[in-house]
Amino acid sequence: MSRSVRRGEGFRWEDVPLEPYKETGNDFREVSRQLLFGHGEGLASDLRYFEVGPGGHTTLERHEHAHAVVVLRGRGRVLVDPEIREIRPFDLVHVPSLTWHQFRTTGDEPLGFLCVADGGRDRPRRPTPIELEELRRRPGVAGFVRI
Amino acid sequence: MSRSVRRGEGFRWEDVPLEPYKETGNDFREVSRQLLFGHGEGLASDLRYFEVGPGGHTTLERHEHAHAVVVLRGRGRVLVDPEIREIRPFDLVHVPSLTWHQFRTTGDEPLGFLCVADGGRDRPRRPTPIELEELRRRPGVAGFVRI
Repeated sequence: MSRSVRRGEGFRWEDVPLEPYKETGNDFREVSRQLLFGHGEGLASDLRYFEVGPGGHTTLERHEHAHAVVVLRGRGRVLVDPEIREIRPFDLVHVPSLTWHQFRTTGDEPLGFLCVADGGRDRPRRPTPIELEELRRRPGVAGFVRI
Repeated sequence: MSRSVRRGEGFRWEDVPLEPYKETGNDFREVSRQLLFGHGEGLASDLRYFEVGPGGHTTLERHEHAHAVVVLRGRGRVLVDPEIREIRPFDLVHVPSLTWHQFRTTGDEPLGFLCVADGGRDRPRRPTPIELEELRRRPGVAGFVRI
């Protein structure tokens, strides 16, 4: 990264491409990804900005690596197993290792958040049918999750 | 960290103490620190929020670890050797390894920014008299730096 300062405006950033959330899959909806800082050269983590459009949701998944999230725009709800919580700008969301999680947007404005994750992270795993059945038994979860 | 969601409002966060920037030293002015997420358990980095009050500045220093910064409030100027750049909300600042840097606030509002840094990072070093002399020869730097 050669430039020390890159401008941000309207939740887009100079020299940062707007990317798909994931290359493949139909287990998410209306999600974009911008890699603000990549790991390497003195930084162990990636810092990404995700935006989930109206009616959208991220993948229901879990993994060994944790997520550190700061909400920047919009309103939404997040499952961090076993809790479902409302979120709004500047809230912090901690997703511990191996914890099922999913973000959903509430209302007409996109839900946007920064997310820190280790550069050398493991791949996310989706729930097996048995795990999904178990997860759905938690209060409120059956009506919340989108798969 | 037991709670999945912690509220943020007015650049303070639930269960996050407002800390001094550093324990000792007189090479900074009007700087506070909040540790939003600490490293460990699946996260290699710390995510901190720093706020530099009107007239304030961080320490002029460098270190092996890099910084990934997202400005959240206020206006300021930053030295990332050899550049001095104006910064405002949502701008990204990358401080590479071993690069002299210092943040200063412009105007009456505090300058606030998120900063990602490795958990196992090296200690910052201040410039020696010879390094400072060399640094001051860069355009604009002599009038900018505060030590």
